[in-house]
Amino acid sequence: MDTKRILNFNAGPAALPLSVLKEIQSSFLNFNNCGMSITEISHRSFWFDDVINDAVLRTKRLLKLDDRFHVLFLQGGASLQFAMVPMNFLGDNNTADYINTGTWSTKAIKEAEILNKKINIAGSSKDKNFSYIPENFNFTKQASYVHITSNNTIKGTQWHKFPDINKIPIIADMSSDIMSRPLDMEKFGLIYAGAQKNIGPSGTCMVIIKDDLLKKALNIFINKLHV
Amino acid sequence: MDTKRILNFNAGPAALPLSVLKEIQSSFLNFNNCGMSITEISHRSFWFDDVINDAVLRTKRLLKLDDRFHVLFLQGGASLQFAMVPMNFLGDNNTADYINTGTWSTKAIKEAEILNKKINIAGSSKDKNFSYIPENFNFTKQASYVHITSNNTIKGTQWHKFPDINKIPIIADMSSDIMSRPLDMEKFGLIYAGAQKNIGPSGTCMVIIKDDLLKKALNIFINKLHV
Repeated sequence: MDTKRILNFNAGPAALPLSVLKEIQSSFLNFNNCGMSITEISHRSFWFDDVINDAVLRTKRLLKLDDRFHVLFLQGGASLQFAMVPMNFLGDNNTADYINTGTWSTKAIKEAEILNKKINIAGSSKDKNFSYIPENFNFTKQASYVHITSNNTIKGTQWHKFPDINKIPIIADMSSDIMSRPLDMEKFGLIYAGAQKNIGPSGTCMVIIKDDLLKKALNIFINKLHV
Repeated sequence: MDTKRILNFNAGPAALPLSVLKEIQSSFLNFNNCGMSITEISHRSFWFDDVINDAVLRTKRLLKLDDRFHVLFLQGGASLQFAMVPMNFLGDNNTADYINTGTWSTKAIKEAEILNKKINIAGSSKDKNFSYIPENFNFTKQASYVHITSNNTIKGTQWHKFPDINKIPIIADMSSDIMSRPLDMEKFGLIYAGAQKNIGPSGTCMVIIKDDLLKKALNIFINKLHV
């Protein structure tokens, strides 16, 4: 069966190491000797706690994240983050800067606009069909965050140096280059990445959020967390 | 290995038939002879089209759904539908009726309120700790929909007869009793059910929507569908 495996260089779905697939396969009827498949066990069980805690620990080790950072695995892909980010961080009295570098930045901007959130396009390379990363910006002084797309596979551009914006946190969609290079995490308040491009199978989105940005989430959601 | 399987009567996660688990296991490294795992293939591939189209067809056959009904498999669980339903169907100029029969109805109501949507509690059994299904309602004449929870496992109550509300569509969270009985689909505009209770593994939510309700989705989203 191994010899039939194809080499998958597709831009979207991630090929997984054969050893990982084999481990999943061999334990599929009886995960960790619990007598059930991993698809059948409770998300509240200690068997599943081990899976998620291990994934968080590995992420923190690989990206050198200290205890200020929280690692989440959410549904809805990076596209749901296009809505969740402004819903959680933009109220009636604040705004955010977005930099438009291509297809996915455009979708993130559109989603914030559909939600009637006040945003400012602080930079764009739309004038030349997104063929470059902008270097001139009109940042808002009190922006809650600056949103960027770290890598644009469709246009072939990538941020090589992330802007310094006077302590305003960068929120970055890193779906297509997460884990491909070391990151200076001090600049980021939140990073999100659909797993299927670089780090895993389709169906989960990794979100990394720093404590100080989390504390600025709109009160209505913060209150909900403590219910 | 079969003899180690446990009998899982847990209220949350669904046990799957052993034959289904074995089929997944045996094809896990090479789905449908494509040379890849199903976790690695594109959602745009014809291999995956077959999977999703087959699931839709079986759902339609089992629930006797005609061509007015669309079957979707979405992420975020039934809980995301608590938000998606009011976001899609409640604008500034309309309202909806909610009937509160327990823990999950309460959460659905809370989510609509967090989103600042205008809703009316048309019935409730909160006065007796949700120990019964209400029979007296104050429905709104022009409500966009009436939201109910068809079964309340925590309190042990279930709607045995769904209300007739003068052509206003019922939207029902059926997570815990979907596929357990025949339904008169004429009354429903939308049904949603987290798969893990009654029909499959965790990770997907089945949403069934009727054409005439779909056409009433807020324009901003309708326009988006055609982009």
